[in-house]
Amino acid sequence: MKYVNNKVEDIKIAYIGGGSQGWAWGLMSDLSTADDISGDVYLYDINYDAAKANEIIGNKIKDVEGCKSVWNYKAVETIGEALDGANFVIISILPGTFDEMDSDVHAPEKYGIYQSVGDTYGPGGTIRAMRTIPMYEVIGEAIKEYCPKAWIINYTNPMTLCIKTLYRVFPEIKAFGCCHEVFGTQKLLAQALEDILGIEKPSREEIKVNVTGVNHFTWLTEAKYKDIDVMPVYAQFIEKYYENGFNDGRDDNWLNSFFYTGHKIKFDLFKRFGFIAAAGDRHLAEFCPPKWYLASPECATSWLFALTPVSFRKEKLAGRIEKSQRLVSGEEKFEFQETGEDGVKQIRALLGLEDLVTNVNIPNVGQIPNLPYGAVVETNAVFSDDSVVPVLAGNLPESIYPLISKVVGVQEMIDKGVAERNLDVIFNAFIQQVDIPIDQARTLFDEMVENTKEYLKDYSI
Amino acid sequence: MKYVNNKVEDIKIAYIGGGSQGWAWGLMSDLSTADDISGDVYLYDINYDAAKANEIIGNKIKDVEGCKSVWNYKAVETIGEALDGANFVIISILPGTFDEMDSDVHAPEKYGIYQSVGDTYGPGGTIRAMRTIPMYEVIGEAIKEYCPKAWIINYTNPMTLCIKTLYRVFPEIKAFGCCHEVFGTQKLLAQALEDILGIEKPSREEIKVNVTGVNHFTWLTEAKYKDIDVMPVYAQFIEKYYENGFNDGRDDNWLNSFFYTGHKIKFDLFKRFGFIAAAGDRHLAEFCPPKWYLASPECATSWLFALTPVSFRKEKLAGRIEKSQRLVSGEEKFEFQETGEDGVKQIRALLGLEDLVTNVNIPNVGQIPNLPYGAVVETNAVFSDDSVVPVLAGNLPESIYPLISKVVGVQEMIDKGVAERNLDVIFNAFIQQVDIPIDQARTLFDEMVENTKEYLKDYSI
Amino acid sequence: MKYVNNKVEDIKIAYIGGGSQGWAWGLMSDLSTADDISGDVYLYDINYDAAKANEIIGNKIKDVEGCKSVWNYKAVETIGEALDGANFVIISILPGTFDEMDSDVHAPEKYGIYQSVGDTYGPGGTIRAMRTIPMYEVIGEAIKEYCPKAWIINYTNPMTLCIKTLYRVFPEIKAFGCCHEVFGTQKLLAQALEDILGIEKPSREEIKVNVTGVNHFTWLTEAKYKDIDVMPVYAQFIEKYYENGFNDGRDDNWLNSFFYTGHKIKFDLFKRFGFIAAAGDRHLAEFCPPKWYLASPECATSWLFALTPVSFRKEKLAGRIEKSQRLVSGEEKFEFQETGEDGVKQIRALLGLEDLVTNVNIPNVGQIPNLPYGAVVETNAVFSDDSVVPVLAGNLPESIYPLISKVVGVQEMIDKGVAERNLDVIFNAFIQQVDIPIDQARTLFDEMVENTKEYLKDYSI
Amino acid sequence: MKYVNNKVEDIKIAYIGGGSQGWAWGLMSDLSTADDISGDVYLYDINYDAAKANEIIGNKIKDVEGCKSVWNYKAVETIGEALDGANFVIISILPGTFDEMDSDVHAPEKYGIYQSVGDTYGPGGTIRAMRTIPMYEVIGEAIKEYCPKAWIINYTNPMTLCIKTLYRVFPEIKAFGCCHEVFGTQKLLAQALEDILGIEKPSREEIKVNVTGVNHFTWLTEAKYKDIDVMPVYAQFIEKYYENGFNDGRDDNWLNSFFYTGHKIKFDLFKRFGFIAAAGDRHLAEFCPPKWYLASPECATSWLFALTPVSFRKEKLAGRIEKSQRLVSGEEKFEFQETGEDGVKQIRALLGLEDLVTNVNIPNVGQIPNLPYGAVVETNAVFSDDSVVPVLAGNLPESIYPLISKVVGVQEMIDKGVAERNLDVIFNAFIQQVDIPIDQARTLFDEMVENTKEYLKDYSI
Repeated sequence: MKYVNNKVEDIKIAYIGGGSQGWAWGLMSDLSTADDISGDVYLYDINYDAAKANEIIGNKIKDVEGCKSVWNYKAVETIGEALDGANFVIISILPGTFDEMDSDVHAPEKYGIYQSVGDTYGPGGTIRAMRTIPMYEVIGEAIKEYCPKAWIINYTNPMTLCIKTLYRVFPEIKAFGCCHEVFGTQKLLAQALEDILGIEKPSREEIKVNVTGVNHFTWLTEAKYKDIDVMPVYAQFIEKYYENGFNDGRDDNWLNSFFYTGHKIKFDLFKRFGFIAAAGDRHLAEFCPPKWYLASPECATSWLFALTPVSFRKEKLAGRIEKSQRLVSGEEKFEFQETGEDGVKQIRALLGLEDLVTNVNIPNVGQIPNLPYGAVVETNAVFSDDSVVPVLAGNLPESIYPLISKVVGVQEMIDKGVAERNLDVIFNAFIQQVDIPIDQARTLFDEMVENTKEYLKDYSI
Repeated sequence: MKYVNNKVEDIKIAYIGGGSQGWAWGLMSDLSTADDISGDVYLYDINYDAAKANEIIGNKIKDVEGCKSVWNYKAVETIGEALDGANFVIISILPGTFDEMDSDVHAPEKYGIYQSVGDTYGPGGTIRAMRTIPMYEVIGEAIKEYCPKAWIINYTNPMTLCIKTLYRVFPEIKAFGCCHEVFGTQKLLAQALEDILGIEKPSREEIKVNVTGVNHFTWLTEAKYKDIDVMPVYAQFIEKYYENGFNDGRDDNWLNSFFYTGHKIKFDLFKRFGFIAAAGDRHLAEFCPPKWYLASPECATSWLFALTPVSFRKEKLAGRIEKSQRLVSGEEKFEFQETGEDGVKQIRALLGLEDLVTNVNIPNVGQIPNLPYGAVVETNAVFSDDSVVPVLAGNLPESIYPLISKVVGVQEMIDKGVAERNLDVIFNAFIQQVDIPIDQARTLFDEMVENTKEYLKDYSI
Repeated sequence: MKYVNNKVEDIKIAYIGGGSQGWAWGLMSDLSTADDISGDVYLYDINYDAAKANEIIGNKIKDVEGCKSVWNYKAVETIGEALDGANFVIISILPGTFDEMDSDVHAPEKYGIYQSVGDTYGPGGTIRAMRTIPMYEVIGEAIKEYCPKAWIINYTNPMTLCIKTLYRVFPEIKAFGCCHEVFGTQKLLAQALEDILGIEKPSREEIKVNVTGVNHFTWLTEAKYKDIDVMPVYAQFIEKYYENGFNDGRDDNWLNSFFYTGHKIKFDLFKRFGFIAAAGDRHLAEFCPPKWYLASPECATSWLFALTPVSFRKEKLAGRIEKSQRLVSGEEKFEFQETGEDGVKQIRALLGLEDLVTNVNIPNVGQIPNLPYGAVVETNAVFSDDSVVPVLAGNLPESIYPLISKVVGVQEMIDKGVAERNLDVIFNAFIQQVDIPIDQARTLFDEMVENTKEYLKDYSI
Repeated sequence: MKYVNNKVEDIKIAYIGGGSQGWAWGLMSDLSTADDISGDVYLYDINYDAAKANEIIGNKIKDVEGCKSVWNYKAVETIGEALDGANFVIISILPGTFDEMDSDVHAPEKYGIYQSVGDTYGPGGTIRAMRTIPMYEVIGEAIKEYCPKAWIINYTNPMTLCIKTLYRVFPEIKAFGCCHEVFGTQKLLAQALEDILGIEKPSREEIKVNVTGVNHFTWLTEAKYKDIDVMPVYAQFIEKYYENGFNDGRDDNWLNSFFYTGHKIKFDLFKRFGFIAAAGDRHLAEFCPPKWYLASPECATSWLFALTPVSFRKEKLAGRIEKSQRLVSGEEKFEFQETGEDGVKQIRALLGLEDLVTNVNIPNVGQIPNLPYGAVVETNAVFSDDSVVPVLAGNLPESIYPLISKVVGVQEMIDKGVAERNLDVIFNAFIQQVDIPIDQARTLFDEMVENTKEYLKDYSI
């Protein structure tokens, strides 16, 4: 890595999960449009062919019009080759396949447990954590060996537990987790400003927020736009749209565009607790008591949000694989498309090219004093030269403390249970996330473990 | 109050709720058998006649054989007369009547919500708090006016919120809450020592414990007897009795003797979380997710504990009223009976007659660092001359943190909601304690409020 | 105040101490060169004529070439007129006159106590605090009355105690203290990078630092420039210049240009404690044990820094008064000169025009967890729309903890002593800052109080 | 170790420093008069002959009238024999000889630095720590190997750093430090109660105190006797005796009886800071700024306390050696004499024979929240079965915070410096404890190190 005239060249990025169709292309797009950084991206994936396809796709980008910087892509067969000497490591993997996710999400339905996403919390999130955390233990150890000074950016869910695991196996790691859910909420607040006050298209970056809580159950305790306190504006906006939802609330991010929500849960949580829940309704619902928003599919519908079936993800994946083939063959041209993610901005800030204040997931060292220290929380942080320093988000307000402290505590238990490969500890965390009798929960838990046992080989099952 | 030859004379005790049949007699018994303290007990009760009856009963005790100290009892018509210049204030009231309690406990049953006690947490505890907290605001203000230097000992439930209220209205108050549930658990541990190790009748005081958590959801993170670590002994005891319960687990305390429990919930919680839940199973069940132990009456039976119907309390009351009449008329003689409560020991310790380490409910100033400061928690404390200092119980262990932190947070919300007489805040705490849909919860909440509106006059309902 | 096309117009700034020659002109210069803000500056000063002169000077600036925004200046006779409805309040006053400062600085010399500045800590800082804090009590009360929502920027020393006072009298105040000392240190680090690594003129803003401690005894625990850790570079720089000082270490800031330092104290503190002391040596010396760097004038010389006599300040003042007259008369033209202060940048950030991360003095709410909460500390903070949020600077490192914790504790005592107008409490803080016998200290203290009694009328002396 | 009828037999105590003349005899006396514990005491000392002498003396005690329990004494040649399987370990050693102490105490005098004790803080305490900490590293490692479950009671100075070292090398150790200085202050308070209020001979245990701070610079923030607040009584007592000292303030403890003090420093600190300094004046003086009480021998005299010359200690030692010979030969009979130490009470409490609340030195885990966690502090703690739990002493009051926080910080630096055998870190702690120029301090430090180099062999000097 070297600095030349306010540009940084020869950056080495390792991309774990580099065969991804979707995230990888987004990153390629963002990298290529950043004109002051360039270098090599090493793609590692358990599906080497997918990584190879992305190598081809990535290397064609230099020739696409609008490309502002040159990045070379290289698929590698071992994680060591990818990590060795890397300056940055991006991790975005699918732990297991959509078949496992199918079990995570749908197996509980026979007990009346519905999940809109199923990748973070609840029964699905728990079982997913059981297979993800051991993978992250391996990744963490490899980082310690091959690139202990690198910055690690994680996108995989369950976010909180991925980051927790990295710090557990290598406490000196420089890792953080990124998530765009807060950005989506900032956009909604921008729409509220437009709708209620007639302000023309504020950008999401102009909405300044104090972020607190945990990933996907993140909250804003303050929101400001110029000299305007956004909280009462949002309250008015909610009065207007509570009943039927906010229809233009469609998230433009390509990742979410198929997942309609009328933001009614977000509105309801604001009315109840006085603060802004800052994630998609499909995520928020899963952290609340099960009968609130997920009592049944009809209940979900009445709250104006969809349960995302895994079959749909499978279909989407098929489409993306086809697109990958077209991009590789040249049949389809790569198009730059801003993802709205902060990843490349964060890299630039860490390189000292421009300060950035944004939200991240890192262990609590006091940024939220009334949550357990060491638990991974989401707050704003200042990114600058080789440094991420959390801002003091402050104590969780009283009204959201019980909801969030429980979630944090349950996730800490899952981490401990998986770290020890202790199924009982995990199960005792599991039963705090469902509202069915313990014996039924045991049957369900055992079934979900059985369904995904391919990925749970180092547990004594 | 004066000290004469290592005795303290002319102590003034104010007893709020002094017409009680039961608690009052227990206190009279304990006071009369303490040979180094004497003085006056002023009895105040909204039922003056009941207080008057206790005056008569109390004043006869001097003549009972075995009486070691002279206490004069006096029923008064105003709280001010009782409190004025008091050295100690004991509060033990029934907020409302058993008719209100009937609604608290049984109204939720139509939604499949069962409560074994219904006076601390859950829907019953919440509605009870709505009528109790305003009463404690009045009591706290009166203490501030009439006896700001007095020590206040509370026995009323919901304990946590009663103490919270006293400190809210008068931050300099010297108040604490007493509860015998930990003692009952110490006795169970003594039985385990006898059963497993053949140790003969250890006393409960000999079992040294580290107490943490909140009232009625209190936990022991350490338990020792001489050089024996009681934890593995208890684990063995549980192995032996888990299936069928421990039948001699009958609590001798007259308050509980009709309420059978096989301690199976206590055993189950130990197996799950590794620490000793230290309250009666009927209490513990109400703090856990509803489907664990209270899914149905049959579920409760299978866990070897009883739901206590309020009708039963009414019957018991009738019996106690008859007994009161017999005691007043002299038909029945007062008999000394050690209550096993620590109240009189605490008074003696606060007077400097003997140090005492026991568990109390007071605001958290750091004794449990990972719970919110200011919330009322239960830990050990050192009682000595005019002083109660909590010991450092330490952070809640990871495995019980999510269960307890949520409970603490919900109780803080109830306090805030009642302090503001804000039904919405209270309702939003209410729905975190039940697992039914929000609209059903609203109907239930409104009904329970309506049922008890006689005592909720200063809310805008 | 209104927003028009990304500009903010009609801002009202109140300037307390607005008759100043120097600071006021710097602010005028910075304001006029910020092209996206404009409005009115109300000048209040106990010397009305001086404020009036600045009104004239300020209003001429619109016509100076290079002026990018229009500000109207208005001298007012009461603080209320200045504050009423203000959006921002700038406070920069001289508490008392240079005659009082003469006593503060030089009276202790007869006891072998030498002070290089004498306005923050030590005997001079203490006596100065005695007259400043009561003034800030008045200012704080006036802000509460006239502009409770305004942002308050303080430049007066003793900084820590001025800010502490404002929060004490009006806890909801939005006040912070600004100081350029850290900037000077960043410049020195930039010079080290140039000198040791040959990097060409890094700007001070490019040196990213973690700031901790208290004003004028501020420390950097991290310093980075792009991918370079500045700490070992600075260590090398110190090896090179320790003996004879760094001669180009002259601070360019016009405020300091007469006050030569070779940075040898800063170098010495780094060698001893491993972290970067981030204030001018003249300030740093006063916080260390008296015999280290201020044992005698010769000692100071040997450490390559000057003691600033107050006579010199008086001379300088005379020159500035003359300059003021020339500016008023038009004999001399106003020239724009960047002050290097962050004040205007902070205003722009608070208006939402651009985020800023910089160091400020505000009460400790956890940004330095091992210093007392509520004490005013200096760390970085994020400035954005109507918001200043401290970053989590972390615990003070072990090696500088004893030096700093003592200073913080002594300043807290001074605040308490002055708040209570209790000379004994102040004296007991005083004797912790000198190393002479208590009886001599009493004589000195009494003399210094007597010398400045004109400004100490509300003490019972 | 076994329990028989409420007695504990076969206890093994290891006594490190078991050849001591004085402490060892006191312990023997206390053990023999405790009728419910018995067993073996293994005496280990680098002076084996001295241990052997104590073996003989100890084994004769069984036959002395008044002996209530049988203890067998055995001198051993290795620390392993002493520790192996021990239930309790008592450590009371002289690190080096009085020749080293002579340098510690008197070498600084040529720079005008006077020390009244010289074993805890200041130049003497620092150099003593340099030779003591390495010894405690060895002891801590041996305990980890031979008796990791034993309770360790330390009496050696510097107390704070001895305990810190034990926890540093073996974090799971169960160690605490005991000191009688607080007891002496309780006795003084008892005398104040007698003198001012005419209360007859209150015992020191009846004075209930809240203890805070660090060893030998310990403070009482509350003191109560029955229903009497002792603080105003003490204030009155001070008014009466401030000028000429309290003459009957002679400490009866044989260890101190030759060291007269009029308690004037204790009185002065109370008048200045409002809390009770709870150690002998000779200790207190050393923690305050040097010019306060130790500016010169005359200064000390004026404050009514003596500087203890090491020559005097040597003389005393000679006398004790003679006494030892007489005891061994039988020429003199052993006499029981209550030491007033809590050691045996603590052992009995840890065995579960009786609860005890007393002051101890252990690492801060929150008992004093505004001091650094991990530093060793002195507060009350509850002793019961195999358990020492600190009470929550609370934040240090503002008025004593700067004095104590600095001391704690300096001691932490010494620990770090010695742990790393880094003379520079130690020196930088050294210069914070003297008020002489740095170059003189260096000369002194080097001389003191040279003088004691026999015991500093593992430093690179």
